[in-house]
Amino acid sequence: MDDNYPHLAEQELESIQVFGGKLLDVRRDRVRLPDGRECLREYIRHQGAVVVIAELDEQRLLFVRQYRYPLRRSFLELPAGKIDPGEDILATARRELIEETGYHAAEWRHLGVMHPCVGYSDERIEIYLAHGLHRETDPTPDSNEFLDVLSLSLHEAVAAVQAGTITDAKTIAALFWAERVIQANW
Amino acid sequence: MDDNYPHLAEQELESIQVFGGKLLDVRRDRVRLPDGRECLREYIRHQGAVVVIAELDEQRLLFVRQYRYPLRRSFLELPAGKIDPGEDILATARRELIEETGYHAAEWRHLGVMHPCVGYSDERIEIYLAHGLHRETDPTPDSNEFLDVLSLSLHEAVAAVQAGTITDAKTIAALFWAERVIQANW
Repeated sequence: MDDNYPHLAEQELESIQVFGGKLLDVRRDRVRLPDGRECLREYIRHQGAVVVIAELDEQRLLFVRQYRYPLRRSFLELPAGKIDPGEDILATARRELIEETGYHAAEWRHLGVMHPCVGYSDERIEIYLAHGLHRETDPTPDSNEFLDVLSLSLHEAVAAVQAGTITDAKTIAALFWAERVIQANW
Repeated sequence: MDDNYPHLAEQELESIQVFGGKLLDVRRDRVRLPDGRECLREYIRHQGAVVVIAELDEQRLLFVRQYRYPLRRSFLELPAGKIDPGEDILATARRELIEETGYHAAEWRHLGVMHPCVGYSDERIEIYLAHGLHRETDPTPDSNEFLDVLSLSLHEAVAAVQAGTITDAKTIAALFWAERVIQANW
């Protein structure tokens, strides 16, 4: 029991991988419910990810536009990416920012963590704020990733959420954080 | 091509279900990348969901605490749930609010949509604001769902995000919306 609500907790009885792909590790576990009955839980095991609030001058933030095949359209998102096995999470944040945007950041601050999909994935996304940016190289995304890099002011980004132009939940949740910490002391 | 960035778009060549469970429909598609190469994309097909910002008096919002087996701990979340096949999304919102909290709402407003997991799921979450609440029954969650119902002020909820007590991304993203519309005109 890893939290203080044992009347809600479910206990693993058996865990089976039902699909192991290049990206997805899909599990189906047999669990004991709080009332003693058994139930099956299906979910994805994920290695975790980072999202980066990268602040240029004058509260402009770096964004990427990327086609997201599951939804068959492109999304406007903050730079983000998966943690490689064994990789330090700050190293992931630095690597993804460089790869996706070509920018290096002098100062980094860890803001918190979010869980994008608690119903069927164990993914966590570590939230970083990056400051003191300078463009170092051209973006070098993975060979199967195609991105546009752009910048929006914090104000424009908030307006884009309200206009429905930004709907990616990790980006909205990170902007919730950005509104609280940008302009704060470093 | 369903958006204006054809230089980013990927084209489906073949779609295969690699796992069909009680909850998860896992696909592996062969796709054409923008540069003409082929690639495999693995993802979840999801029927969509709703999340409800249910405002009691004095800016207090209804929350549920629920054990999320993939992460082996409980989460503090806004009421939410999956859209049944063919179900009207407002009907889903009304049903989930009653089932999870026992509350009925007189007024409903659709605020927008978010996508929790664009990298490997097509899930969308429709965001509703509910007003004019009264408690109608005891909560009647699904037989394999165990919940605590509680309320937090908007201020307390925002503080809980900053303290790391709320990390569910759909809840944080919905609070981003709530901050903008609560106290606004109905």
